[in-house]
Amino acid sequence: MKIAVVGTGAIGSFYGGKLAYHGRDVHFLVKSGFAKIKQSGIRIRVKKQNFHIARVQAYKSADAIGPCDLVLIALKATNNEALLQLIPPLLHPQTILLTLQNGLGNEDFLAQNFGADRVMGGLCFICLNRIFPGLIEHLDYGHLTIGEFLGSPKSRTRAVAREFQKSSVVCRMVDNLMEERWRKLVWNIPFNGLTIAAGGITTEDILRDVSLYSAALALMNEIIEGAKSCGYNLLGDVAVEHMKRTETMGAYKPSTLLDFEAGRALEVEAIWGEPLRRAQVNGTAMPRLEQLYALLKSLNARRK
Amino acid sequence: MKIAVVGTGAIGSFYGGKLAYHGRDVHFLVKSGFAKIKQSGIRIRVKKQNFHIARVQAYKSADAIGPCDLVLIALKATNNEALLQLIPPLLHPQTILLTLQNGLGNEDFLAQNFGADRVMGGLCFICLNRIFPGLIEHLDYGHLTIGEFLGSPKSRTRAVAREFQKSSVVCRMVDNLMEERWRKLVWNIPFNGLTIAAGGITTEDILRDVSLYSAALALMNEIIEGAKSCGYNLLGDVAVEHMKRTETMGAYKPSTLLDFEAGRALEVEAIWGEPLRRAQVNGTAMPRLEQLYALLKSLNARRK
Repeated sequence: MKIAVVGTGAIGSFYGGKLAYHGRDVHFLVKSGFAKIKQSGIRIRVKKQNFHIARVQAYKSADAIGPCDLVLIALKATNNEALLQLIPPLLHPQTILLTLQNGLGNEDFLAQNFGADRVMGGLCFICLNRIFPGLIEHLDYGHLTIGEFLGSPKSRTRAVAREFQKSSVVCRMVDNLMEERWRKLVWNIPFNGLTIAAGGITTEDILRDVSLYSAALALMNEIIEGAKSCGYNLLGDVAVEHMKRTETMGAYKPSTLLDFEAGRALEVEAIWGEPLRRAQVNGTAMPRLEQLYALLKSLNARRK
Repeated sequence: MKIAVVGTGAIGSFYGGKLAYHGRDVHFLVKSGFAKIKQSGIRIRVKKQNFHIARVQAYKSADAIGPCDLVLIALKATNNEALLQLIPPLLHPQTILLTLQNGLGNEDFLAQNFGADRVMGGLCFICLNRIFPGLIEHLDYGHLTIGEFLGSPKSRTRAVAREFQKSSVVCRMVDNLMEERWRKLVWNIPFNGLTIAAGGITTEDILRDVSLYSAALALMNEIIEGAKSCGYNLLGDVAVEHMKRTETMGAYKPSTLLDFEAGRALEVEAIWGEPLRRAQVNGTAMPRLEQLYALLKSLNARRK
C-alpha cells in the first residue's frame, strides 16, 4: 500500500512516522522544514521509547509523489483550500482519502471536491507537541478511531486499520464516524474553547473553578442536544465520562491553546462554527456555543 | 449641605469636583495621590471647557472630615470592605449615603451595614478617564440618575438632585432605582463584558461583527428577561435603544476594558455575578451570562 502524508505538523509526522518506522511505503509532502526533515529525518520523543525515522521519503510537490493508495490528510483545516492543488496528483481511481483533521466539515470538503466514495475520517486521541519540523513530542494517548464517511466499515476500512495496527498504533473502526466526531466535540468544544477564552488556563483550572466547571458541563450538555438534533444520539453519559477522563490529565493545555499562544491560526470553523451551524439548522438553540464561537472568532482574528 | 466624597478615582473626582467648583462644601477622602491633589487640586479636561478646582479640601482620614449631610461613595465595588471603617466617622443621624458605584449589590451592602433609610443610589452616564490622581479627562455624557434605595423620591432626594443641578450636572430622579440599574446593565453586561472577553476590542468592533453583534443582542434579551423575573419590567425596546445609542459612540473602549488592560481589578461581582445570581434565584436561566461571568472571573484573576 503506497501511502502519502499531506502535512508534517504534529499529527502527520506522528502517524506517518509510525507507519514509516514499521516499514510501510510512506511519502511525506512537506511544506515547511523540508531540508531539515530530509537531512535529519523525523524524531518522536516519547515517554517510554523514542523513535527515529532516519531516512524519510520527503517531497516538495505532490507531482513528485504521484498516485497513492492511501492519503493521510493532516493539514490544519484552515488550509483546506490548498488541498485543491495538492490532492489531484496523488489520486488513482481507488485512492482512499483519510482525513485526520479536527471537527466537522473536513470529510464533506473532500467529498465535494474529490468524490464521497474515497473519503474516510479518523479521530486522533493523542497529546502531541511539534517542537520544530521533524521533532515531535508525544505526551499522552495515541489511539486512532477510523470510519467511512458513507456507511459502515468495509474491507478497505479493515485494510487501513491493519496498516496502523501493524505499525503499533491502536486503531479501532466505528460504524458511525460522524457520531464519533460529535462525541469528541463534546470534549473539544468546551475544553479547547474555554482554556483559550478564559485567558490561557489548563483543563485542571476548569475542573477546579466551580463557575468554569459548570460552564463546561453546560456546554457539553448543549452539544449532546445539538448532536441529537442532527441525528446522533450519543449513548452513555458522555459528559460524565469526559469529565472523569479530564481529571486524569492534570494541568493539560490543549493543542489549540498552544497554537493560540504561539500566534497560530485556530480551527474556529471546524471545531466551533460548523457544529453550531449544523445544530441551528436542525432547530437547536446553542446559546453557550454561539457566544463562545463569537469570542473565539474575535480572539483568533486578533491573535498576536 | 456638608458633603464628603469617598474615593477620588474618575467618578469621585468628577462629580465631587463639579460640586466643589460650584461652591459647595465638599470634603474629599483621598487614598492615593494625596500630596498631588493637595498641591495641584483637581483638573477636569473637557472638550468644551476645562475646569480646575485649585484648593481641594482633601483628607487622609474620615475622622478628620467628621459627620456630613451627604456622602458620595465612589470607590470600586471590589473595595467595599474598606467602607466599614471609612463610613462611620462621616455619619450623623440624618447622613445620606449616595453610592455612585456600578452594578447591583452596593445599595444592599450599605443598607446592611449602615441602615437602609440612609441609602440612595446614582447611575452615572459618563465616559471618563483618570490620567493620574487629580487629572481627569471627560470624554462624553455626564448626566446622573438618582433614586432612593427604599421607595420613591422624597424631599431629601430633591435636595440632593438640586445640589448637582446647581453645579451644572444634569441630574434626574427616578421612582424605581433598581429598575434603572437593570436597564443600565442591559448595556454594561454585554458591552463591558464582550469587549474584554473578545480580546480587547471596542464597542464598534462588536457592532460590526455579525457574531458578536448577535451575541450582544442575545445577552441583552437574556438580561431583560432576568430583570423581569426579579420584578422589573423594563418598558420600551431597551435592546434596540441601547444599540442605537452605541452606534453614536464610535470606537469606544468601556472603562472596565481600560481597567482590565491596565491590570486593575474588574467589578466582576457587581456587574456580572450579582445580576446572574438574582435572576437564577428567581428561576431564570441565564446561559450566556453564566458563561461570560465564568470567563471574566477567570480573566480577572489572571490579569496582568
